[in-house]
This record gives sequence, C-alpha cells and structure tokens, in this order.
Amino acid sequence: MPAKNRQFLLASRPKGEPTLANFKLVESEIPTAGPGQMLLRSIYLSLDPYMRGRMNAGKSYARPVEIGEVMEGRAVGEVLVSHLSGFKAGDVVFAPIGWQEYGVSDGTGARIIDPAQSPLSYALGVLGMPGLTAYTGLLNIGNPKAGETLVVAAASGAVGSVVGQIGRIKGCRVVGIAGGEKKCGYAKQELGFDDCLDHRQPQLTERLKAACPSGIDVYFENVGGPVFDAVFPLLNDFARIPVCGQIAHYNATELPPGPDRLPMFLLSILTKRLTFRGFIVGDFASQFSQFLADMVPWIKEGKVKYREDITDGLENAPRELIGLLRGENFGKKIIRIGAEPAANC
Amino acid sequence: MPAKNRQFLLASRPKGEPTLANFKLVESEIPTAGPGQMLLRSIYLSLDPYMRGRMNAGKSYARPVEIGEVMEGRAVGEVLVSHLSGFKAGDVVFAPIGWQEYGVSDGTGARIIDPAQSPLSYALGVLGMPGLTAYTGLLNIGNPKAGETLVVAAASGAVGSVVGQIGRIKGCRVVGIAGGEKKCGYAKQELGFDDCLDHRQPQLTERLKAACPSGIDVYFENVGGPVFDAVFPLLNDFARIPVCGQIAHYNATELPPGPDRLPMFLLSILTKRLTFRGFIVGDFASQFSQFLADMVPWIKEGKVKYREDITDGLENAPRELIGLLRGENFGKKIIRIGAEPAANC
Repeated sequence: MPAKNRQFLLASRPKGEPTLANFKLVESEIPTAGPGQMLLRSIYLSLDPYMRGRMNAGKSYARPVEIGEVMEGRAVGEVLVSHLSGFKAGDVVFAPIGWQEYGVSDGTGARIIDPAQSPLSYALGVLGMPGLTAYTGLLNIGNPKAGETLVVAAASGAVGSVVGQIGRIKGCRVVGIAGGEKKCGYAKQELGFDDCLDHRQPQLTERLKAACPSGIDVYFENVGGPVFDAVFPLLNDFARIPVCGQIAHYNATELPPGPDRLPMFLLSILTKRLTFRGFIVGDFASQFSQFLADMVPWIKEGKVKYREDITDGLENAPRELIGLLRGENFGKKIIRIGAEPAANC
Repeated sequence: MPAKNRQFLLASRPKGEPTLANFKLVESEIPTAGPGQMLLRSIYLSLDPYMRGRMNAGKSYARPVEIGEVMEGRAVGEVLVSHLSGFKAGDVVFAPIGWQEYGVSDGTGARIIDPAQSPLSYALGVLGMPGLTAYTGLLNIGNPKAGETLVVAAASGAVGSVVGQIGRIKGCRVVGIAGGEKKCGYAKQELGFDDCLDHRQPQLTERLKAACPSGIDVYFENVGGPVFDAVFPLLNDFARIPVCGQIAHYNATELPPGPDRLPMFLLSILTKRLTFRGFIVGDFASQFSQFLADMVPWIKEGKVKYREDITDGLENAPRELIGLLRGENFGKKIIRIGAEPAANC
C-alpha cells in the first residue's frame, strides 16, 4: 500500500464553466476505518453532470460540496479493511466516496457488486444511478406506449442511451439528439434508435419535425436549452416530460434575455394538457431491485447496449468533468483510478 | 311564445381585451327541432373565462367560434319540443346551446336536471363544469394530504371557491388569493379558508410567504401572472400544480419583456421535483357521477358553500364577460335569460 492518499478538493466555486483552478489535488494520509466503517481502494470513479450543481453554494436537492471538502462522487472500489457488518476485505463495492484514491465508508449508499454479473464499472452506469434514472423516469413518468414517439437528448450518454433503448423495447418510435455525426451514427446503428439528429447542425427544429411526423408523446428532458426549444412546439396533447437534467444551463450565471416565455409555456401546459415532472434518481430508489431484474437480462440479451468512455488517472478528473459538461465524452464517463482485483478463480 | 329568437354572434376577433364591438346581437327565427333534436328555451347562461380563448382564431384544446357563429356557452333551459329519446317537453336540461334565447340540441353534452336536488343554476357552477374542474383537478393532480398547504387564486370564484373548500375537507391549510377585501372576507368568513390575500394590495409575495409558513404543497393554478410569480418561489419539494387556467394571459397579445425565465423554471421543476399538469374538465368527464355523489351531500351539509353573481338579460352578456375577465364578478357569473318553469306541485 502506498503511504499516501490523493484527493481532489473543491478549491473555489466556479462562475459559469468550471476551470481547473476550481479543483485542488492534495496528498493526505490514507484514512483509517473506525468502528462501523470500511476502508476502500477506489478502482473506478464516475463523472456525472449533477456534479456541477454540487459545486454551487445554494442548496439544490442536495447539500453543496463545501470549499475544501473532497469533491463528491460515486466509485467502485475494493474493500481493504472492514469493521462494518456485511462487508469484508476483498469485496468489490459501490460507494459514494468522492474524488480520491482511498476513502472510508460507513455503508451509506454502499452495496456489494457481483463480479460475475457484469463488468465492475457498469455499477456506475447502466446498472447504477444513470441506468436507474433512465428506467424509473421513463417508466414512472414518461409512461411510453407502443406506437408513440419518444425523443431523448444526449442520446449516446449514460442516461439517454438507456432511455432510448427501453423506449424501443416498449415499442416506441425513438428519436435521439446528440452532438456530432459519430454519436448519432452510434445511436442509430448500435443502439437501434429510429433516428438521431445532430444538434450541432443547423435547422434542428425543422429536422426534428421531419423526424417526428406524428409529434412527440414523451420527451425525456435531460439537457434543456435549444433542444428543449425545438421539442416544445412538437409536443402532442397529453405528452409527458420527465425532467431529470438541464445540462445546458448548469454553467449559466444569469437569466437569458427576453422575451419572457414562461407565461406562454404555462398556457401551453394547459391547452395541451402536458405533464412536466421533475425527479432525481433517489426518488425511486425503492425500485432498484426491479430495475436490476429487468436490466441485467436486457444487457445479456443484447437489447440494451452500453458504451463507456474511460480515462486513466485521478489527476485527469477535473479536465474530464469540464469536457463532460461540454459534451465531449462519448459514452459514460469513467475515471480509472486503480486496477481491478485479480479474479479469484 | 315570442315570434323571434335573439342571439349573440361573434362579430370580430378581439385584439387583447374584448370590446362590445366584438359581439353582435341579432334577431332570428326561433329554430325548429328536427328528428333527433329538441328545442330549448334558455333560462340561465353561464359566463366563463374559457370563452375568451374560443374567440381567438387559433386552435386550442377546442375549435374556435367562427366569425358570424353564435357565441359558445352552456345553459340551463326548458324543453319546449322534443323529438329526442330521453327528453320530453317540460324537462329542465343542461345543454351547451350558446348565447341565445332559444336553441336546438341533438343531446350532445345535454343532461336532465333534477329540480329537487338544488337550484337549477347550480348545474352551471358548483354542480357543473366549474365544480367538476375543481374536484377532479384537485383530487387527481393536486392530491392534497391532511396538514399540507394548498393555495388557490380566484378564491371567491366558481372554481377557486370549490377548490379551497374541498381542500379544507381534506384537512389542508387553505390560503386563497382574490381581488379586493370583500372577496377575501367572504373566503375567510363564509368559505372557511384559513387565510385569503388581496392581490391588489402591495407586497403579495411577502404576505403570501407569511401566510404559508410551511411553504406550498399544492397550487391550483387558474390565473397565472403576478399570483403565479408570488407562489412559485414558495413551492415545496414534490409540490403538485394542476394547471387549469391562465386568465391573466387570455387577453395577452404578445410575450412580455425579458429576462426569459423559462430555463430557470425548468431547472426548478427538476431541483424541487415539481409536477405541473394541465387539464381541462373534459379530461375527467367519466368522474362526473362520483363528483355528484360527493358534492351534493357536501352542499346539503354546508361543507361547500356557493355564491352566484346573476345579471338579467341576454343583452348584458358581452359587458359581463368583459367584466369577468377583469375579475369584476363576485361569485359564479350567470346571465338570467328567462323565467324558471312554475313548480309542478
């Protein structure tokens, strides 16, 4: 075991887009697991858009990371020492221990991962919070029915890719939106989307209209901004809009100029009888076992495909989070911090 | 029977607030009931905010009234002649025959009223569409729970007064908003609201905050505008907002100046996990008998009180609709067109 731990602390709060200066890499002692705790060696760290919100001071749905605290993050790690019932040295676990190489956990939010079930890192994506977000938001709020049209943005990402594939399983026409030809081609050819539009090309509104000749019944809202603006006029009566992300606005520092579209928006909710409902994955935590019971077979049967975008080294986490917020990743963004345990066979 | 019918036609489409010139009073022959039709003599005509939307050209949730057509409206009338199964001369019926003294109906949307159950005009209000709107929107979408805080605007009106009283029945703290001290006093003293705020007085936001010390769990949205702006920051996590009216914007001709609050609004839907759902009463038409089964006893037991604002004479309907859109009515706005039938006892 090395003598030191490495951690990223929140050094300062970003104004708009984060910069490398907002993060500080420090060395510290490797912590000790006290009673009721376990010491973990991190293997994979998940980078996710929600982290941008935690860097702000104001309370959102969760408390912010304070200046000088370890950046929040979910990880897959190996138990080195356990004084915690239900976990033993050698177990591979999911635990939210943040941006660091070693961390202690009291078991909050932690669970053991079965290495035989899937690659270990899947617990951070398709079999973890992003997958559960897609599954619960789409099925509880979106309520997609066969023959309906489902639109999802960030179509090649950790959440969007799963939303679209579940939509296909449910018999929907699925139209994705993504940044760049490569991601769009992947959504169509690998994920089986009926269509996928590049939002970086002009005339998104017109192209979306052409791709959704029967309008839009379910829009899984995870980006906001110009994509939302293109979707909104195409929503059918009784459309359902699960709202789980607004990545286009996470770096925003002020309201955009007018006109103020809010009154028009509320009037449209009325006249089209739309349902907008915000959620975060924790609201549906009780559905996790049902989720796994559906998702593990879907992956094994090839009905749900999954792509990761893995970068080695904790030191690259800030740069990669900044890139993620710009849409530069292609698939679920993971930082590989340490080696997987040797297989016990 | 008089020799002539009188009707109000839509003469022109309003730009902004309607004027008397948008309506044209004409005399015409009294129509004849053909096979499968009945001839009605109108007794009470209902005036409702939704009528403003029908005067516009664009399709909303219903087709517009065309220029030269009889203004749309719901009425209680007496059957004079019936060639329609299930209806006979002398019956008192509810039927959407529009702004006229005599009309024919093929039975679409018509139903017989039991004169023993309640005053005949109640079929246009607390026992009709406004009451059903309040009941279904609040219970299906608002889902109020004992101890929660419910806010409703237009608190003395046909819909708002019923929303608030059902909220009280369900054990909520109910805070109304209305225009003027008289309406507010009525909501508090007669309807039993816990509080009612006059939106014409300054500092609505501050007063609403004081009246809702635990925040707002259900906001029954039927007005929009400054009331919505005061409510929105006070919404609690998981608040439900049935959207059934936007009277503040019905006369609007253009979007207000900026900033554009829509992105902030969507972000709040996410972070607070709000549910906004638009509806119109027809979406819940199948719940009408359940509604009556609850509402008739509530009225008899004094748990739901109801106030009407009746004006005599069809010729006054345009002026009264304009006043309704300004909030000048005090209670359900009704135009009395003819006499009630003599009681058969």
